[in-house]
This record gives sequence, C-alpha cells and structure tokens, in this order.
Amino acid sequence: MRVNGEHYRSIWIDESSGVLQIIDQTDLPHRFTIREISDLETSAEAIESMRVRGAPLIGATAAHGLAIELGRDASDAALDQAIERLLETRPTAVNLRWALDRVREAVQGSSLDRRAARAREEAILICDEDARNCEAIGESGLAIFEGLLREKKQGVPLELLTHCNAGWLATVDWGTALAPIYKAHEAGIPLHVWVDETRPRNQGASLTAFELREMGVPHTVIVDNAGGHLMQRDRVDAVIVGSDRTTATGDVCNKIGTYLKALAAHDNGVPFFVALPLSSVDWTLSDGLAGIPIEERGAAEVREIAGLSDRGTLERVALFSSKSPVANPAFDVTPARFVTSLITDRGVCEATRSGLAGLRAET
Amino acid sequence: MRVNGEHYRSIWIDESSGVLQIIDQTDLPHRFTIREISDLETSAEAIESMRVRGAPLIGATAAHGLAIELGRDASDAALDQAIERLLETRPTAVNLRWALDRVREAVQGSSLDRRAARAREEAILICDEDARNCEAIGESGLAIFEGLLREKKQGVPLELLTHCNAGWLATVDWGTALAPIYKAHEAGIPLHVWVDETRPRNQGASLTAFELREMGVPHTVIVDNAGGHLMQRDRVDAVIVGSDRTTATGDVCNKIGTYLKALAAHDNGVPFFVALPLSSVDWTLSDGLAGIPIEERGAAEVREIAGLSDRGTLERVALFSSKSPVANPAFDVTPARFVTSLITDRGVCEATRSGLAGLRAET
Repeated sequence: MRVNGEHYRSIWIDESSGVLQIIDQTDLPHRFTIREISDLETSAEAIESMRVRGAPLIGATAAHGLAIELGRDASDAALDQAIERLLETRPTAVNLRWALDRVREAVQGSSLDRRAARAREEAILICDEDARNCEAIGESGLAIFEGLLREKKQGVPLELLTHCNAGWLATVDWGTALAPIYKAHEAGIPLHVWVDETRPRNQGASLTAFELREMGVPHTVIVDNAGGHLMQRDRVDAVIVGSDRTTATGDVCNKIGTYLKALAAHDNGVPFFVALPLSSVDWTLSDGLAGIPIEERGAAEVREIAGLSDRGTLERVALFSSKSPVANPAFDVTPARFVTSLITDRGVCEATRSGLAGLRAET
Repeated sequence: MRVNGEHYRSIWIDESSGVLQIIDQTDLPHRFTIREISDLETSAEAIESMRVRGAPLIGATAAHGLAIELGRDASDAALDQAIERLLETRPTAVNLRWALDRVREAVQGSSLDRRAARAREEAILICDEDARNCEAIGESGLAIFEGLLREKKQGVPLELLTHCNAGWLATVDWGTALAPIYKAHEAGIPLHVWVDETRPRNQGASLTAFELREMGVPHTVIVDNAGGHLMQRDRVDAVIVGSDRTTATGDVCNKIGTYLKALAAHDNGVPFFVALPLSSVDWTLSDGLAGIPIEERGAAEVREIAGLSDRGTLERVALFSSKSPVANPAFDVTPARFVTSLITDRGVCEATRSGLAGLRAET
C-alpha cells in the first residue's frame, strides 16, 4: 500500500544492503521511521514492543528473525532456543507459532550450512503468501460490499466501522479487515469508514486513520464508546474487523472491545464481518472463551499516552495517578453467534464449524 | 465526601467571603484547584468548559450563577437573558432547565430588591436537596448491594463496574451511581469497583478513580473496551451508572458508551442499574432515541489529551493528525429493556412507565 504516494510493505529486505527493514509502528502516526532488524533480539524486541504488530506481521517478523539467527548459528539447539525466545513475545497470536513451525520444518531436511538460506527463502515465501492471501480477502469482501451497496440509495456511501488496525500495517500488505475497503475504494465504490480509536494503544486513531488517509479513503475517528450510538442511529451499514485467533467453530479473538461492537451490531441488525487468513484459525479449539489465553499487558499502556506537543516533540504523559491500579486485558472473544460471516483468503463462510470446515476442505 | 481527609462539597459558598466556590474538575486528578465564581459569565464558562459537570452539579451551578446575576440586575430582562445564556451551555442535561425554572419561579413573586437574596436561598436549597437526594439514592442502592452480596461466597468482594463519573463530583455531594458504593463501603460491605476510563474526557480515570481513592474504596481502572470481556469472565456482579436524562418510560441517556455496557450486561446476565434523582426524569418523553438531542462536542476532545509530564507539568498532546476528521457524540441512549432497575432518591423501580409513575405518585 502507499505512504506519501510511494508503495511500501510493512516488512521487506532492502535490495542493496540485504538487511531486513520494518516500519516502526510505535512512531506512527507522528513519524514515519524505518528500522533495521539485524539479529534475533531486535526481531523479538520489535514484536514485544509492538514496533510490528498484527497477527500476520508478527508471524512474518518472527520467521525472518529466526532466519537471521540461523545465519549466526544453524544448530538444532540454536533453532530451538530462538523459537522459544520468539514464542514468548506475544502469547495470543496463533500466526506466530504457525510461522515458526513452517520455518523449522523447512530447514529440518537441510544441512547446517544451507539452513539460513532455506529459512530466509521460507520467510520471504511467508511474506509473499501473506500479501497474496490478504489481497484474496480483499476480493472476497469486495463482493459483500457490492451487495450491501445495492441495498442503498444510489450515490449514498457505504458506511463501515472498524476496530483496531487490521490494515496493511498489521499484515505484510493489503491487510485483512481493510483489504476489502481498499479493493472497494479502488473499484470506485463510495464509502466512509468510522475508525474506532482503540484504547489503550490507539491503533485505530494512530494506524488505521493513517493508512486510510494515505490511501485517500474517507474516514472519521471516533472513541470506542461511540460505535453503538452510531449503529442505533442507522449510520453504520456493516462492521468489519480482523482476528488474532479464530476457533474451528467461528469464535473470534480480536482486540479488546471487539465483542462490544459485535453486541451493538447484533442489537441493531448491522452485519458483523470478520476478515482473516485461514491460517489464523486454530483448528484445535472449539470454545474461544474457554480455550484462548488472553494476554494481560502492563498498566503503563492505560495510564500513560504519547502524543505530539505544541513544540513538535513526542511527549509521554500520565493520565491518572499511579496510586490507582490498572487491569489491561489485550483481547476479547466474540462468540460465533454474533458473527455474520467470516471473510477469508479462501472465500466467505458462516462462522460455524461446518462453514470453516468447508473452506478448509477446498484448499 | 473527602479529599485529603477533609470534607468537601463540589460547590459551596465560602463562609468568610460569601463568594461561590467550585472545584475545577478539568485540573483533576493532577491538581486540586478551587475556583471562585463571581458572575454570570464565569458560571456559564465553568459549565461550558466542564470545570463543573454532571447533571445535578450543572443545575446547582446554573442556579447559583443566576442568583449572582440577579444581584447585578434583578430586572425581568436580565433574568430572561441570564437563563438563556445558561441554557445554551449544555444541551442534554435536563437538570439545567429544571434548576433555572425553580429559581425563576422562586423570584417571580419577589420585589426587585429581594430577588437576588431569594434566588440565592433557592440555589442553596437546590444544593442541600441534591445532597440529601443523593444520600437517599445511596440508601436505596445499599439494599440492592446487600442482596447481591448474599448471593456470593462469604468474604468475596462484590464486583461492580461503573462508567463515567456519577460520584459526588458530578452532584453536590454523595453522587448518584457512586452513592450506593460509598454507603456500602461505610457499611463494611467488601467491594471492588472496575472504573471505565470513559473516553474522550476520561472522567472515569480522572474523577471516579480520584474519588474512590480518596475515600479508600478498592478499584481498578480499565479502558472502556474491557468491560464486556470482564463480564464474560464472571468478574462483574453488577453495573451501576448515572443518567443525564431519563424518559418517562425508563430509557436512559448517559455518557457515550453506556449503551455498550448495558448490552454486555444483558448478554451475560449481569444486572444493570441506573442511579438518578427523580428530578432528572423528563416526563414529557416516551422514546429516548427519538426524543433526546445528543450533544456533539468538538474534535479536540478526541484528538488531544492532557496529562502530567515527567517534569511534573500539565501537557496537552495531539494523539493523531488533524487531517483525520473526528465525530464526538457525548451521550447515548440505553433503551429501558436493558435496565434492570432504576435506583432513585424515592426508592427503586422498574425501568418502565408504570414503575416510574408509581414513584412519582408517592412524592
């Protein structure tokens, strides 16, 4: 996708230096900073500090980080240790394990001196596949948006609401929830996106609004509290969000607050779509509430916030006293019964075991 | 209630100077600033800038502001103009008009030279009544909490969730939603309060957490997105919120995001209580969604935020680009069907026309 009119992916290997590069998303939207990832620890730190975030991009970064580490030490012990280090960075994203397993499998048949190159090939493959899969999600969603538009008066834009950032910055390119929006915008469908701020890390206001602005997509930032009110007033035609982990039965674990928007959509007859690569389905789980561990993050994310001062400097300020305790669960689970459809890279299905199994069987 | 162990009301007349005083709530929780209200314009500005906020306190401040203005000019023209100025400060709160009408009625029989004193008496009466009514809400709610506690294991604290600030800082004393919490805490009932941050103005994190801390009530601050997740995990026994305006049928207009918590409570079988003085019921309305105008506030409230820097200075920072538009509805309407009970100064009732009419008839 585009920043300042130039095409970028969220992760890439610089052609001249051969060094892995990422966009440091903790500096967005105030600064557009590109960082080098030169070893295992910087890749793990980038994931932990959320310089890269979003399930697919976490997987891609971990795969590349593992490949870099194998260049230093290609032994089985180093492989195991590196995977262990990378797995502990974020506990919820299923793509992380999936990507690391893929690289491990890819190198296992190779001689030690071939492992780093083989891992790098696999990491590049993961990135290219992700970009392709996200574009396919976009195509699947586009058809749904075209259908919704036909129910509206001619010329009246489609009103969409999204939570968090499931755009190209959360993946390698295109995004999941935003891919159909980009496809629809490209196809000339008039649309407008309500962007949930997404506390505590404000990925909506910081990243989704940034992405949409750079791509020229009309949008409005709202606080997370406002979406229900807008749905009550018929100002939302559909909600579309991403998913960090989806059970085999269609329960969706996504950014904290997603469940509240699903409830509001349900109460107001607004369709609620979840866009995801089929690779983020955890086929071993049938109950999202019972089975998905929810990452509890630090208090500072809620208590402090960074923004741009009048002087143009990035400042971190405390919003309330450190004497008040904080709880900070990072994700919640939206039960499948609130999900209208799952929009995947393999097509659209119901959020049910049979719906998902049907798509899986076709691949 | 207490700050630094001393008793305060949110508005009072200084005994030695005779000047009206308020706590500037825009400085909380970082600074505890007392401001003088010396004329009509400073009282209107205090309401508009939300130095005072919360439906009952807005009414009390407007009544006192009107009384001060009548000391300057007690003519009918000045009375009408002052009321007009004060009414335009905040469009949603029904207490504002109610308090101004009361003062107008009180002075209408008086000679011009008696009007200011009569208005001041009425404003003081409004404040004292409000404090008494809020304490009565506390007593009504206490009985409900005692009932909820009996359903829990001995010694396990009652887990409550509240949105925004409906504490003593929103009223003259005691508060509405927090009054039962203070009464229960005084009565030795073990309890813990989940405090919704309440974007965009963060009244939960800034004011409710401040109030509870000063009163020694155990609490935890969470982002607005987290409440649904906590209810899914059985970590909330009841939700209790205030109301800016309640219809004769029990629809509740309260801080934006209240509706989302009501939906989550409903989906998880958690009782959802609304605490209010009966004076905030708008008996002319039967449909909250159709009948209550929702105040749309400025973009800066969403885009910018103030907090304490490392240097101990209050800093305002921009969270995202001014190129992204913002919408900022300040309230939403929770339909009566999601409200378990209304807790009022005249007792507890169902959120129905007959429930409310019953309480009204008894008064």
